[in-house]
Amino acid sequence: MDPLPVSYSRMTQTRLVLPPDTNHLDTIFGGKVLAYIDEIAALTAMKHSNCAVVTASIDSVDFLSAAKVGDALTLEACVTRTGRSSMEVYVKVYADNLLQGRQKMTTESFLTMVAVDDTGRPKPVSAVIPETEEEQRLYDTAPSRKEHRKNRAALR
Amino acid sequence: MDPLPVSYSRMTQTRLVLPPDTNHLDTIFGGKVLAYIDEIAALTAMKHSNCAVVTASIDSVDFLSAAKVGDALTLEACVTRTGRSSMEVYVKVYADNLLQGRQKMTTESFLTMVAVDDTGRPKPVSAVIPETEEEQRLYDTAPSRKEHRKNRAALR
Amino acid sequence: MDPLPVSYSRMTQTRLVLPPDTNHLDTIFGGKVLAYIDEIAALTAMKHSNCAVVTASIDSVDFLSAAKVGDALTLEACVTRTGRSSMEVYVKVYADNLLQGRQKMTTESFLTMVAVDDTGRPKPVSAVIPETEEEQRLYDTAPSRKEHRKNRAALR
Amino acid sequence: MDPLPVSYSRMTQTRLVLPPDTNHLDTIFGGKVLAYIDEIAALTAMKHSNCAVVTASIDSVDFLSAAKVGDALTLEACVTRTGRSSMEVYVKVYADNLLQGRQKMTTESFLTMVAVDDTGRPKPVSAVIPETEEEQRLYDTAPSRKEHRKNRAALR
Amino acid sequence: MDPLPVSYSRMTQTRLVLPPDTNHLDTIFGGKVLAYIDEIAALTAMKHSNCAVVTASIDSVDFLSAAKVGDALTLEACVTRTGRSSMEVYVKVYADNLLQGRQKMTTESFLTMVAVDDTGRPKPVSAVIPETEEEQRLYDTAPSRKEHRKNRAALR
Amino acid sequence: MDPLPVSYSRMTQTRLVLPPDTNHLDTIFGGKVLAYIDEIAALTAMKHSNCAVVTASIDSVDFLSAAKVGDALTLEACVTRTGRSSMEVYVKVYADNLLQGRQKMTTESFLTMVAVDDTGRPKPVSAVIPETEEEQRLYDTAPSRKEHRKNRAALR
Ligand SMILES: CC(C)(COP(=O)(O)OP(=O)(O)OC[C@H]1O[C@@H](n2cnc3c(N)ncnc32)[C@H](O)[C@@H]1OP(=O)(O)O)[C@@H](O)C(=O)NCCC(=O)NCCS
Ligand SMILES: CC(C)(COP(=O)(O)OP(=O)(O)OC[C@H]1O[C@@H](n2cnc3c(N)ncnc32)[C@H](O)[C@@H]1OP(=O)(O)O)[C@@H](O)C(=O)NCCC(=O)NCCS
Ligand SMILES: CC(C)(COP(=O)(O)OP(=O)(O)OC[C@H]1O[C@@H](n2cnc3c(N)ncnc32)[C@H](O)[C@@H]1OP(=O)(O)O)[C@@H](O)C(=O)NCCC(=O)NCCS
Ligand SMILES: CC(C)(COP(=O)(O)OP(=O)(O)OC[C@H]1O[C@@H](n2cnc3c(N)ncnc32)[C@H](O)[C@@H]1OP(=O)(O)O)[C@@H](O)C(=O)NCCC(=O)NCCS
Repeated sequence: MDPLPVSYSRMTQTRLVLPPDTNHLDTIFGGKVLAYIDEIAALTAMKHSNCAVVTASIDSVDFLSAAKVGDALTLEACVTRTGRSSMEVYVKVYADNLLQGRQKMTTESFLTMVAVDDTGRPKPVSAVIPETEEEQRLYDTAPSRKEHRKNRAALR
Repeated sequence: MDPLPVSYSRMTQTRLVLPPDTNHLDTIFGGKVLAYIDEIAALTAMKHSNCAVVTASIDSVDFLSAAKVGDALTLEACVTRTGRSSMEVYVKVYADNLLQGRQKMTTESFLTMVAVDDTGRPKPVSAVIPETEEEQRLYDTAPSRKEHRKNRAALR
Repeated sequence: MDPLPVSYSRMTQTRLVLPPDTNHLDTIFGGKVLAYIDEIAALTAMKHSNCAVVTASIDSVDFLSAAKVGDALTLEACVTRTGRSSMEVYVKVYADNLLQGRQKMTTESFLTMVAVDDTGRPKPVSAVIPETEEEQRLYDTAPSRKEHRKNRAALR
Repeated sequence: MDPLPVSYSRMTQTRLVLPPDTNHLDTIFGGKVLAYIDEIAALTAMKHSNCAVVTASIDSVDFLSAAKVGDALTLEACVTRTGRSSMEVYVKVYADNLLQGRQKMTTESFLTMVAVDDTGRPKPVSAVIPETEEEQRLYDTAPSRKEHRKNRAALR
Repeated sequence: MDPLPVSYSRMTQTRLVLPPDTNHLDTIFGGKVLAYIDEIAALTAMKHSNCAVVTASIDSVDFLSAAKVGDALTLEACVTRTGRSSMEVYVKVYADNLLQGRQKMTTESFLTMVAVDDTGRPKPVSAVIPETEEEQRLYDTAPSRKEHRKNRAALR
Repeated sequence: MDPLPVSYSRMTQTRLVLPPDTNHLDTIFGGKVLAYIDEIAALTAMKHSNCAVVTASIDSVDFLSAAKVGDALTLEACVTRTGRSSMEVYVKVYADNLLQGRQKMTTESFLTMVAVDDTGRPKPVSAVIPETEEEQRLYDTAPSRKEHRKNRAALR
């Protein structure tokens, strides 16, 4: 399994916020955004690993601003670093008011996706090669986030 | 606004895991579970506050075991403590293999829901009164979780 | 197969009424409520029987009041009595106007769920033990409802 | 408001049974069939009354045989008789195994739909004119079904 | 395989336009209409061929007028002519403003559906027998539409 | 309204093919792909025009290969040329077998989207500036496609 550049599996998704995704203030449900974040993280990790994946964890998510019916949500995802069978995926979400042409950061998060075989057991994955400055920074800071995740698990 | 007991807004939800919720290993998507967690947290917070609510944040979520097609997911939620306009909601998720009668913890999480008026601006909420031992423990540990959330926001 | 108390499989479900569930008067479709009633009845019967189930019949349903977008629907279900392979399930539905804190009965119904094996053939189920007064009343009146169902089938 | 022939609003619907509509025996959920029955009854009543409608009640439903993934469900609906603001709608459901060319009766039911204005208040509707023999029979037997519905309400 | 009359598999579908199908002008999405057209074409072709089918192509579609929330869409489909394994299906779509009792043509299209076996390989189908004048016209003009489809493929 | 480069509104979408999107051969429905094509075309046209849009037409679509459950569908869309109120949008669809790392062209199409105001009336849009060679080619060939569309309308 040769290492693969981050760009190989990087992905973008744009989705229109529709009435069924929203509450009676016409604001998208946080849970809908979380489901979109998980979907793009899974696709990115499947592309990187050529493999089925499951979500092992998602780091805390702060919703900075609301997205409304008619806005477009844009999600961007990339694999930042890999373990033996796990991949950390970084996801950024923007809301675009298409009619006013304004874009706001909605949220961002880190997920850990694990490559699994047909019986659900972890399977080894290729390493990633960071190429841009942002990719290098996310690669370098991944071990401390992993450490933090282990500690939080220990606390429970 | 009189304080309300935690039991007033405590809620339970059971859902059958159906084929559209799952990947090709017949395992539920993490994003689907996150959407269910957000929905019950919103209902619990609306019940406590008699008010529309938005999700301000969700703490990290670890998926401990997979739920399969045909399993029942049971979610339990309660308001642990309140601020001026924010409510911390604790959600626990179990997966029941109905055919074998076995239950496994799937995950748990803390969310912050904020009561808002019709224009989306934060609105004051009633305090909660913990009654059971677990409720008291969750109430007492809430401030340190809030502190931790502020620090993590500061780090970004 | 030992008898099981009614409380073993009793279940509660709360759901937010969302725009896609409603007509252009913002009132929930009767068919949506019927689908929710069937889902909780199936879950309750699966929990009682540790078995796949199918719906054999649903008794008549009167919709007493309309639920609106933003209301919470609460469904409660329990097995009232069993035959060889069939279970009568009682479901009650309330609508909560969360913002005004008022609750109204929406409807109630009795369903017959049948436990089936992998080929869809009826399978024996455990008996139920009523414990509360309401459970005892529902248990005692079950045979006359069963009789009534047979007669109505004969009339067609 | 001139009376309208039954044929004016009679409706047919064919739907493919898809995986999300079914349990793990690949059998359609009873609740899904009930939702389809309510949808076609509403459309038929709207067509007859040129008006928004709500479901007041559905008579008991017996599911005679199971429909499977890949079957086609055919629903037929017509207004059998009207009151001042209410319409009784009769719905028949068949399951077609398209690959074997066999058709089985799945179920049938009577619903009462009520025409309402924008505030949800009942509104008068046109009478129906039965034309075929079956339509005449359903028209003639409607009052005794209506009587029976009143009695069952009284019994609760 | 005996030829079958067009009427054997002709089908009608009526659907209520609901909020989740529409944009913020309350107008149905073109893509939703296309999905309905494909569904009825598939059902019609399955009925004619007693066989699973896949969509090979859809001819150009012009949306002549908009359908709104609360309108009923009526789709009609029939097999116009067959090849060895392919069936040309003609679909017409009307929008009914139920409250005003007015009907407008929304669109029409021709699709080519192919009968396939369990491994997805094309399978022979019965011929059709046109009976009405419109059926005969659609039958007679089918070869020139087929020719046109081949040329358009050649142009790419 | 200044002209905008094609790249300003160019969009990419990746979606996992899930069980509810597929027939019993696990192949995606043509209608589902058409709905995805329309959604990305609408988003692209909204981004270009800062305006609500409706689909005026979609050119013929040939489905070249089947996408299966577990594949990822990637859609790419760009505005090729504009009229006064109309935008021609080109959409390409690829299916990725993520587990085998193979990509196949599924289909491509041209749609005409029309910018509309709040009452649904056509509104003027900015012109596009093609920058790459492919964009220039699509720009140059747009008038002959428009001509062809007018002729086909005239033929009906
Ligand atoms: C994720 C899962 C496969 C891990 O299984 P496990 O028996 O703990 O396997 P391992 O200990 O070998 O861990 C495998 C990898 O997952 C990582 N991992 C496990 N739990 C984790 C967590 N909570 N957060 C982040 N990473 C985690 C491990 O660090 C390890 O990484 P590495 O291979 O790169 O070193 C298992 O916990 C599981 O199936 N969970 C449910 C996943 C799921 O279905 N999610 C959807 C909704 S419930
Ligand atoms: C949540 C939101 C209303 C807060 O607005 P604000 O201008 O920051 O308001 P305030 O500073 O007065 O904060 C209101 C409360 O929210 C809390 N809060 C704000 N951001 C938070 C976060 N990320 N995590 C936890 N709590 C948070 C504050 O502590 C405060 O609590 P208190 O009233 O109990 O003291 C605003 O950020 C928002 O609308 N976010 C989007 C919410 C949303 O739409 N989510 C769904 C998907 S995007
Ligand atoms: C329900 C079903 C399994 C019964 O099959 P059957 O061949 O009639 O079997 P039996 O005569 O042995 O009846 C089994 C039990 O179902 C009960 N039953 C059958 N039809 C019933 C009805 N319409 N209402 C209530 N109970 C019914 C019988 O009384 C019997 O109860 P018991 O075992 O407790 O004495 C069968 O009719 C069926 O598969 N129906 C379709 C169910 C379905 O798929 N529903 C979803 C939507 S179509
Ligand atoms: C598209 C629509 C707004 C055009 O309205 P109209 O009264 O014909 O308006 P115009 O004649 O001014 O045409 C407006 C533009 O649309 C273009 N247009 C109209 N019909 C078209 C068609 N079938 N194919 C391609 N372009 C078309 C015209 O060429 C014109 O382009 P231009 O402004 O760039 O010169 C109208 O037909 C409509 O609302 N259709 C329904 C759209 C819809 O709801 N679709 C979703 C599912 S039904």
